[in-house]
Amino acid sequence: MSYLDQITSPTLLLDEKICRANIKRMADKAARHDMKLVPHFKTAQSHQIGDWAKEYNITEVTVSSIKMAEYLSGQGWVNIHIAFPFNPLEIPKLNKIAAKQSISVQLINAETTQMLADQLESSVGFFIEIDAGYGRTGVEVTDFGLIEEIMLIAKKSDKLKFKGFYLHPGHTYYMPDIPAIYEQSRNALGMLKNKYSTEFPNLVSRIGDTPGCAVMEDFEDIDEMGPGNFVFYDLMQAELGGCEKRDIAVCLAVPVVDIKKNRKEILVHGGGVHLAKDVLVGENGLKNFGEVVYLNENGWTIPEKKSFLKSISQEHGIIKASDELLAKVKVGDLLGILPVHSCMTADAMGEYITLDGKKVDHAEGARV
Amino acid sequence: MSYLDQITSPTLLLDEKICRANIKRMADKAARHDMKLVPHFKTAQSHQIGDWAKEYNITEVTVSSIKMAEYLSGQGWVNIHIAFPFNPLEIPKLNKIAAKQSISVQLINAETTQMLADQLESSVGFFIEIDAGYGRTGVEVTDFGLIEEIMLIAKKSDKLKFKGFYLHPGHTYYMPDIPAIYEQSRNALGMLKNKYSTEFPNLVSRIGDTPGCAVMEDFEDIDEMGPGNFVFYDLMQAELGGCEKRDIAVCLAVPVVDIKKNRKEILVHGGGVHLAKDVLVGENGLKNFGEVVYLNENGWTIPEKKSFLKSISQEHGIIKASDELLAKVKVGDLLGILPVHSCMTADAMGEYITLDGKKVDHAEGARV
Repeated sequence: MSYLDQITSPTLLLDEKICRANIKRMADKAARHDMKLVPHFKTAQSHQIGDWAKEYNITEVTVSSIKMAEYLSGQGWVNIHIAFPFNPLEIPKLNKIAAKQSISVQLINAETTQMLADQLESSVGFFIEIDAGYGRTGVEVTDFGLIEEIMLIAKKSDKLKFKGFYLHPGHTYYMPDIPAIYEQSRNALGMLKNKYSTEFPNLVSRIGDTPGCAVMEDFEDIDEMGPGNFVFYDLMQAELGGCEKRDIAVCLAVPVVDIKKNRKEILVHGGGVHLAKDVLVGENGLKNFGEVVYLNENGWTIPEKKSFLKSISQEHGIIKASDELLAKVKVGDLLGILPVHSCMTADAMGEYITLDGKKVDHAEGARV
Repeated sequence: MSYLDQITSPTLLLDEKICRANIKRMADKAARHDMKLVPHFKTAQSHQIGDWAKEYNITEVTVSSIKMAEYLSGQGWVNIHIAFPFNPLEIPKLNKIAAKQSISVQLINAETTQMLADQLESSVGFFIEIDAGYGRTGVEVTDFGLIEEIMLIAKKSDKLKFKGFYLHPGHTYYMPDIPAIYEQSRNALGMLKNKYSTEFPNLVSRIGDTPGCAVMEDFEDIDEMGPGNFVFYDLMQAELGGCEKRDIAVCLAVPVVDIKKNRKEILVHGGGVHLAKDVLVGENGLKNFGEVVYLNENGWTIPEKKSFLKSISQEHGIIKASDELLAKVKVGDLLGILPVHSCMTADAMGEYITLDGKKVDHAEGARV
């Protein structure tokens, strides 16, 4: 009996082999560059996938919320880092976790640093997040006044331990010149390390985006890398050149509910609540919410001729279908959809099914 | 103690008074037009909100998946309609529900109709979904061949009971001329009713979109209305003219984690996994992923000067802030965000908190 026989509704499939190969490839790359790989688990959010990662000598993880930190704590991680500007309302929850689990947070202002200094009950590490051009969050790289204000408040606390500088150059997702962004990022982290390493000889620098970590080979003296998406990859990463489509480790199985041959359209049960609504827009202006793969007992194959989700609503997905697909599909079949943004799809689905039909946990599905 | 004191992370607030007023207004409108209101519960997905609806003489609901039908079955609904082209892989689940709960499905092709005719174990009603111009799904209104093929297969089954025609003119969401769309829709449903009422004297016609049901006053002889979003409304509906912003019954409470006064930006914990990624694009090309309201003990107030989420990622939201907001906000505060698309936000959050701090259920949060 195939894993396919148990699927009757939208289901997120996980190919363990591809996932492990992705983890291994990035772990090998980190080792080659003498860097520590600390994967961002906002993508996988899973104990099971965490166990796979540990087999490749990954000992620490990053998350983006205290909820994920709670979920992953007590699972043997040497440290869990919350790579999101810390929310001071969650200090009581942090105290609870930190009593049992080594944990670090991310700081970008004096206010939160002071509240932590006042209220922490256990030792907690922290990174200062640096903005070297992305503009989403972080202390501007030349704002030494703020950097030193944070360090000074922390120094007066016996609980807050400075670990180093964290940089997420997220503009690698929409600006084509990744080498230029990385030069800027290396320079920023190198300068800061140089400036503060006398006072903090053990400080580390970490860089965090998947596109850059996937394509770059020059990290100079950056100590750690923290990509997340690479465990699954997705169509966005394939478009950015960080992976091939065959490296995508998850796909949404969707039931075919109608076929309009005259319009070359296939209606599937699979919409925004399953895939999320991230979209690629082609040069022709056509939107692409996911691409069709053919499911089989061993996983999936990528068709030669592309078929893709041209529109989605809450539960509906409409595939613009190739002639090849139209010739073989019928109502009641299952198709696979490679997601545009796998982190969001995994969060929306809240669990995975492997190709041998086993459930793999995800923090969202375990929330009750 | 206020409901606000228990909130430390992104939380979906529900103002029961506004929600009840929205339900009552639509129920009154339906009564005024001698129509039955069968709300689409893909928006609320809740037993509790269902109980409120029942107080306004609502006895039937619509859903968009068998999962929601399972969740709402056995809660005293006279009928549950699954307004999504039926997925034949789910016939065993349908049989299970139909053994205990009056239920109806939506059909648009002969294949699924035949599979139901062959495999149903209990009586199940069905609507034929009609496409009169939207183009997402449904039998084209003039495709009498297909309509009659479906009717004929059903007639040979003693389980499949034809109920009528269902039309969701979803183009009211992006085409400005709602009256023209409604004229087309009324004509389509009227023509079909006329054509088939001799054979099926009890057949009903139902129309299903919130923008039209909210703004139109001319439904001619359409029997039932099935809007969904109106229980909460959202910014998209306000932009379409179906509601005022003060009618929006849900808002996402988000913690403020950083403030960049020089850029007039506020960073909050609230991103795509909370709000979903639906977006409004202004005439100026600026994106709007949600608008700020000020929270207080009694709910929220809408500021005179607009502040809005200009960008979101998985967990981050960046607010473009008014001077008024910047003058009063500090790190550690909570702000409210009115969602662009409340159905998607509610599905992402999986539960609500009322203004007296009580949890209200949602099918997604109850999935385990």
